[in-house]
Amino acid sequence: MKRAVKQQPQPVPPEELELLDAYWRAANYLSVGQIYLLDNPLLREPLTPEHIKPRLLGHWGTSPGLNFIYVHMNRLIRLYDLNAIFITGPGHGGPALIANAYLEGTYSEIYPNVSQDEEGLKRLFKQFSFPGGVPSHVAPETPGSIHEGGELGYSLLHAYGAAFDNPDLLVCCVVGDGEAETGSCATSWHSNKFLNPVRDGAVLPILHLNGYKISGPTVLGRIGSEELIKLFEGYGYRPYVVEGHDPQIMHPQMATTLENVIREIQSIQADARSRGFSKRPHWPMIILRTPKGWTGPKVVDGQQVEGTFRSHQVPLAELHRKPEHLRLLENWLRSYKPEELFDKKGRIRPEIAALAPQGERRMSANPHANGGTLLRDLRMPDFRDYAVDVEKPGVQQAESTRVLGCFLRDVMKKNLESRNFRIMCPDETASNRLQAVFEVTDRMTTEPILPTDDHLSPEGRVMEVLSEHMCQGWLEGYLLTGRHGLFASYEAFIHIVDSMFNQHAKWLKVTRELPWRRPIASLNYLLTSHVWRQDHNGFTHQDPGFIDVVVNKKAEIVRVYLPPDANTLLCVMDHCLRSRNYVNVVIAGKHPELQWLSMNDAIKHCTAGVSIWEWASNDQGGQPDVVMACAGDVPTLETLAAVDWLRKHIPDIKIRVVNVVDLMTLQPPSLHPHGLSDKEYDSIFTTDCPIIFAFHGYPWLIHRLTYRRTNQRLHVRGYKEEGTITTPFDMCVLNELDRFHLAMDVLDRVPRLQAHAHLRQMLRDKLLEHKAYIREYGDDLPEVKNWSWPW
Amino acid sequence: MKRAVKQQPQPVPPEELELLDAYWRAANYLSVGQIYLLDNPLLREPLTPEHIKPRLLGHWGTSPGLNFIYVHMNRLIRLYDLNAIFITGPGHGGPALIANAYLEGTYSEIYPNVSQDEEGLKRLFKQFSFPGGVPSHVAPETPGSIHEGGELGYSLLHAYGAAFDNPDLLVCCVVGDGEAETGSCATSWHSNKFLNPVRDGAVLPILHLNGYKISGPTVLGRIGSEELIKLFEGYGYRPYVVEGHDPQIMHPQMATTLENVIREIQSIQADARSRGFSKRPHWPMIILRTPKGWTGPKVVDGQQVEGTFRSHQVPLAELHRKPEHLRLLENWLRSYKPEELFDKKGRIRPEIAALAPQGERRMSANPHANGGTLLRDLRMPDFRDYAVDVEKPGVQQAESTRVLGCFLRDVMKKNLESRNFRIMCPDETASNRLQAVFEVTDRMTTEPILPTDDHLSPEGRVMEVLSEHMCQGWLEGYLLTGRHGLFASYEAFIHIVDSMFNQHAKWLKVTRELPWRRPIASLNYLLTSHVWRQDHNGFTHQDPGFIDVVVNKKAEIVRVYLPPDANTLLCVMDHCLRSRNYVNVVIAGKHPELQWLSMNDAIKHCTAGVSIWEWASNDQGGQPDVVMACAGDVPTLETLAAVDWLRKHIPDIKIRVVNVVDLMTLQPPSLHPHGLSDKEYDSIFTTDCPIIFAFHGYPWLIHRLTYRRTNQRLHVRGYKEEGTITTPFDMCVLNELDRFHLAMDVLDRVPRLQAHAHLRQMLRDKLLEHKAYIREYGDDLPEVKNWSWPW
Repeated sequence: MKRAVKQQPQPVPPEELELLDAYWRAANYLSVGQIYLLDNPLLREPLTPEHIKPRLLGHWGTSPGLNFIYVHMNRLIRLYDLNAIFITGPGHGGPALIANAYLEGTYSEIYPNVSQDEEGLKRLFKQFSFPGGVPSHVAPETPGSIHEGGELGYSLLHAYGAAFDNPDLLVCCVVGDGEAETGSCATSWHSNKFLNPVRDGAVLPILHLNGYKISGPTVLGRIGSEELIKLFEGYGYRPYVVEGHDPQIMHPQMATTLENVIREIQSIQADARSRGFSKRPHWPMIILRTPKGWTGPKVVDGQQVEGTFRSHQVPLAELHRKPEHLRLLENWLRSYKPEELFDKKGRIRPEIAALAPQGERRMSANPHANGGTLLRDLRMPDFRDYAVDVEKPGVQQAESTRVLGCFLRDVMKKNLESRNFRIMCPDETASNRLQAVFEVTDRMTTEPILPTDDHLSPEGRVMEVLSEHMCQGWLEGYLLTGRHGLFASYEAFIHIVDSMFNQHAKWLKVTRELPWRRPIASLNYLLTSHVWRQDHNGFTHQDPGFIDVVVNKKAEIVRVYLPPDANTLLCVMDHCLRSRNYVNVVIAGKHPELQWLSMNDAIKHCTAGVSIWEWASNDQGGQPDVVMACAGDVPTLETLAAVDWLRKHIPDIKIRVVNVVDLMTLQPPSLHPHGLSDKEYDSIFTTDCPIIFAFHGYPWLIHRLTYRRTNQRLHVRGYKEEGTITTPFDMCVLNELDRFHLAMDVLDRVPRLQAHAHLRQMLRDKLLEHKAYIREYGDDLPEVKNWSWPW
Repeated sequence: MKRAVKQQPQPVPPEELELLDAYWRAANYLSVGQIYLLDNPLLREPLTPEHIKPRLLGHWGTSPGLNFIYVHMNRLIRLYDLNAIFITGPGHGGPALIANAYLEGTYSEIYPNVSQDEEGLKRLFKQFSFPGGVPSHVAPETPGSIHEGGELGYSLLHAYGAAFDNPDLLVCCVVGDGEAETGSCATSWHSNKFLNPVRDGAVLPILHLNGYKISGPTVLGRIGSEELIKLFEGYGYRPYVVEGHDPQIMHPQMATTLENVIREIQSIQADARSRGFSKRPHWPMIILRTPKGWTGPKVVDGQQVEGTFRSHQVPLAELHRKPEHLRLLENWLRSYKPEELFDKKGRIRPEIAALAPQGERRMSANPHANGGTLLRDLRMPDFRDYAVDVEKPGVQQAESTRVLGCFLRDVMKKNLESRNFRIMCPDETASNRLQAVFEVTDRMTTEPILPTDDHLSPEGRVMEVLSEHMCQGWLEGYLLTGRHGLFASYEAFIHIVDSMFNQHAKWLKVTRELPWRRPIASLNYLLTSHVWRQDHNGFTHQDPGFIDVVVNKKAEIVRVYLPPDANTLLCVMDHCLRSRNYVNVVIAGKHPELQWLSMNDAIKHCTAGVSIWEWASNDQGGQPDVVMACAGDVPTLETLAAVDWLRKHIPDIKIRVVNVVDLMTLQPPSLHPHGLSDKEYDSIFTTDCPIIFAFHGYPWLIHRLTYRRTNQRLHVRGYKEEGTITTPFDMCVLNELDRFHLAMDVLDRVPRLQAHAHLRQMLRDKLLEHKAYIREYGDDLPEVKNWSWPW
């Protein structure tokens, strides 16, 4: 069946066209059936209200177009023996993708109850958008999907992520014209500048213009052909247009266009792979213009429906009250001639079924769309080899992310051959001090390279683009197809992808409940250039609130780590890169900072997630006057400096120092699997001592995590939305997280110390001295800058 | 000075070019000075390390290009008497905009200490990026700015928002090529489809290509002219290219191009305004390609700096240790010939200063860039006129947002003439049931209109586009220039603009501290199609976590309202539309739901923010067995149904029902100005009764808000990330927020009720009955669906 590349596409024989059309009709029939029918799936008797679902929930408008593309992709796959997956940007058209998975047999293989017979058809229809059934959008439950069809805008990013390092894969990506208005989609067309035809697969974008969103026209559907073509040529594509509504004309047009397009893709790849990469090719794309709700009811209640926004969801409603609507529905369903499509048992006729590809060539059964099945462990260097040598806590300095960079360099190196690890970053890899990775790889581009460029090549595995959306979307697509990666970002701007994180976490939550979906590598965030050290950038770059978004998602999915120094960062990142099905958020600084733990101690500390730092405490395991807790590198520094000050000025004070690396240990185990038992928690935090907690993020989060704990004598300092361009220490002062305020908090909250009025005054004077000094010299007090742990 | 439109642009006389260049050199000199100099601002003596700041923080790379555009805009403003503002996409170039505001005199008018003399120059330099000084980016502190230069991607959206309904305004918007990679920017070019040349002003986008981001090349800087031109023609613009590095050539090129462009804009406007709107024009734009760090050091330490990423921030560092760098800096500064630019007193020479426009024509003093000065109150209908007639609580139904739609229709109508109110929405105005507004206005488009379109016209004041980024950015620009508006969104997808919200809240926080910035209208969100009623869409559309993001911002800025029915929604929205300098988040349902309060009661309730619903309580002001609290429409319904059930089955139970409209009342007054005093709080919630709190959002938020309150016997139900396509009531059951679980919570938590094992069993049976019923019939139990308040 495989056709040699060099032959010209032959006209499609009429009998093949007829079968294609029959397959399309079957998919359309199954789509409508899912939206409407509770019973009578083969229309063996006239439709009555009892056959109709009580609540009609689904999206018809986009479904026939999706079915049209899908059946033609099937033909192409068989003809050229393609390894292809299908990404459904207009994922509201869940009925279409379920219909196709069912027609290919995959659906019944995964869900045997939904069998290939009348009983199965009835189940297929009833379960759709029905309590206890399946979602109305393309979802994790849909075989063949790596792309949730709820929030719009990320299809093309997932497609490119899937294609990276999969040279044999073709990713067919349908982009809806509604979705195309989103920001993430508008920039994602530029992904072609980051795809190397030698080592990567191909993405075939199909922009599906059906002209309307829920109620308004779409921008790209209305701007006219000339601008449309220029726009996509400007994005670097070679657009092919397929346009019309008559299936007799559209089938041969689409078949020929797809053949031309695949030949062009194969020729680009053959050329690049035989002669080496020379320049970015103009990849083909298709602009498909068809009526919204194509083949659906033309006119309902005197209003045009097909070709308008009125077919977006359910074109016929109130079927229990309006017999004429019921008749329209029956006519609509019968227009697909189900009797020609299904045999007596309700099974699709074999000559039609034979159009689908076989086995793993079926897009609904392609293993790339169930990435966990292809996932291989990373080859990992021993993270202990990168340890900073810490003989004594709090004396020498290191830049934590720079140390991590060496580890990541070797992770990259060890997996160069298996081509399954990438780093995504909005042009900040060096700014985030991970530049050691450039010793073994480059930034990626397919654009011309100039002598003034730094570590740039088409072979690069560091994906830098000034779009958090692209970084996130590519990485999701890469992970969902069974690979590994890391997203390094400025902390504040990770909020740009809050909603993408939400959707990915929801996807993981649902896939955990689907045994046939195999676990994928975790989505690892390294958030650096964080709130406390935005010396260059000020207030707009200060926002540690991503954690607050993250902890709202299912506890089984989310992990948050705040390593206080380089060795703990190494230990945490090693763990994250080995983990599966999580979202790991790791927050660490890039600036030179004091180092606390030897590697052995770091491993113990990270394994526990939270522990008492005995070397900094002087309560000797007894009841302390105060627990000084901290999470995050800067809060840890300030806490220890406060402890030093207090121990020097109040020699008999008993302080316990607690450091939290794994934030989720604070929650009760009933709310998070990492949660400390109450007994463990109480043994660390006591049940009644005042706790002064210095936290990296917004302080209220600690209260939210610990409200069920016994000891509520908890006072939290954190970022309270004060800041500007100023010195590092002044940032702490502005938010009252600095050593002097923390020491004051202890004086205020430990009753037996409240007599020390002179100490309070001394601290107040220190703050005034600080303020005057920075205004004069623009730098921090030497005693603050040069402080180290003296005990 | 104003030149008639029809004359051709004359070549710029050499002496004018020389002055232009001098002005540019002055702006560049001031930019470098701000980054480096602590003293010796006029280089009266050779530079020594003592003249240099201890910490060098700022961005040089983009600054000379910004200065170049600014000075040429000044010429154009004077020549054509333009009313123009300047939006700085590459806002990291703060030094440039501060320099220009200083040259125009505005800076010294607003900040008299920074005077127009040597002393003022010294202050200008020292304060930049210095503790106690001003931020390094374009910020609220920068006169003439409505656009914060921190997070990138929103400049063009702010520009269009500013131009809407300002027919005489020209918004010059510089878009950086780094910023251009962001999603929000990539889609924002399409804003031209939403700008009507008759009633709106003009936006002049200037894409500034300097080729590099922090360390990598930019996409648009590298793709080549052919694609670049096509891309912007595809976006619908007519691009003009100005490219080079020799100022002698660049000055006349830029001057002529700008003249051509302004003539084209004026001709488009004159045509549309005399003959009426006919079709979307191809607005001109400029593509300006100049070296990064233009006029800065060419080579430093043997590496090329000008024209490369190395000039992004501070091209010369370690000046205290490297005398050769200090010499380079001095040569660089002297290359601008400060002695020709400033007089002996350090004041800019009058012939140069005269190039700047005068008074409010100065872009740094244009009142549109301080929108509060132009703000007029909305004309408001009396919201009470739209009240649902509620004779008895909990009996009749209404769709809250549909009722609100009538009110908004009349707000729209009353302000049609003043053209200062718009509604932004991602194609969901009708879906969100606000369609009454279409009785008085339309959806906006400048594209061709088809017979199948619904309420679409170039006069429309409802801005629908499937991009939350565009909706948010336009509205921000509209508000910042002194107008009013509302952003109606699906609740889940407002997370797409979390980061934009963050930045706007930060902007408001800072402007409140600047007396010269006048208050602007609040940013009002209406979040509907919320988590509890996503019947069509399921899990991906369920996320009430925007509140969690919002409450992290400054308490002076943020307000969150959860009106439980139509009358409270009217009352809240009336308040929000009248307020200033806030971000108001209003969450309300769109589906038919029981109505609780008459308008009089609604006003009382909303004024209090939280109150005891006496009519639903039976504790007669005494100590209740339990406080049943609720916030949000669905939680209110379920709470009252639970109260009904409990009162029926346990006749002697004493229940107090509390409803919370204004979420921030729960915080202590020390944390939020709306916070109840402890006394008030305790009088409502008691100090020791169990509280069962049914909350619209993630339950932990209530703990975070109330952790300082006395009564910690608080049990909160809310959305815990469970959901799919199912029935409305089942959504509550999945998250244990339903009436039966709430009643069980009461049985479990009120000690004297724990004996009622049979009641607990009855509730468990109810839940099983529910589950079986929905799986069979796909709809809720009639007794649940048809329940109304019987007491």
